[in-house]
Amino acid sequence: MIKFRMATAKDLNEIVQMLADDELGRTRERYENPLPESYLKAFESIDSDLNNELIVACLGEEIVGVQQITFTPYITHQGGWRATIEGVRTASTERGKGIGTQLILWAIERAKERGCHIIQLTTDKKREEALHFYERLGFKATHEGLKMKL
Amino acid sequence: MIKFRMATAKDLNEIVQMLADDELGRTRERYENPLPESYLKAFESIDSDLNNELIVACLGEEIVGVQQITFTPYITHQGGWRATIEGVRTASTERGKGIGTQLILWAIERAKERGCHIIQLTTDKKREEALHFYERLGFKATHEGLKMKL
Repeated sequence: MIKFRMATAKDLNEIVQMLADDELGRTRERYENPLPESYLKAFESIDSDLNNELIVACLGEEIVGVQQITFTPYITHQGGWRATIEGVRTASTERGKGIGTQLILWAIERAKERGCHIIQLTTDKKREEALHFYERLGFKATHEGLKMKL
Repeated sequence: MIKFRMATAKDLNEIVQMLADDELGRTRERYENPLPESYLKAFESIDSDLNNELIVACLGEEIVGVQQITFTPYITHQGGWRATIEGVRTASTERGKGIGTQLILWAIERAKERGCHIIQLTTDKKREEALHFYERLGFKATHEGLKMKL
């Protein structure tokens, strides 16, 4: 039985390990001991911001999934709040067990609790399976997701 | 000469008028006198949040453009911050004068000032011109933008 909770600083090692253990993640994360300080600083910024939640999925004591949810008030859509999901990852040893689905369903419920009228995310066009996964859950790929590195 | 500044509550009428004066905007905004209270509540949430900035472009006393920039700390990319642009609109009477370009260039500089490593946005696939506009400015449509209404 998977349980969900807010991440703590003690979870950071396991979280970064999961993020790095991925085709795209390994090119951009640095899972080292000790962790680069930038991870801890980002965690502190997230943890102190009521509009950001870093959520871990746990199987017993073990962390088997992670996602970040950002809640944003917008003027558009008559001043509606949106939830944005980012950094969704399931432990590579636990894939195919529906943990990713449970993570997203949890995020959808949390977004409703927070009064959001839209939940959204972007997914790299290289991750074809991820696109189908989200579409099966009811997301519509109505938008282009544009990025620029600074 | 266009000047940029943070929006105030007094600007809300003009901002909503601009958002509503648009092919997609007219189907989802309500520009009425008085404005629906939800706009003011959203403005207050944005205004009191250091990670959200509602920016207006002004030509003299007149507001000719608007955009919202959200700054988000993420664990991914070694704990990097990102800037997300949303609700970009130029007054319909002022289109074709490069105001949209100036808005986005301003957002890029602001994102750098705030230490962001990525600036991002999603644009409705129905807005083909908008996609080309952002690509000309250097954005890459590497991602699918998925949404779900709640």
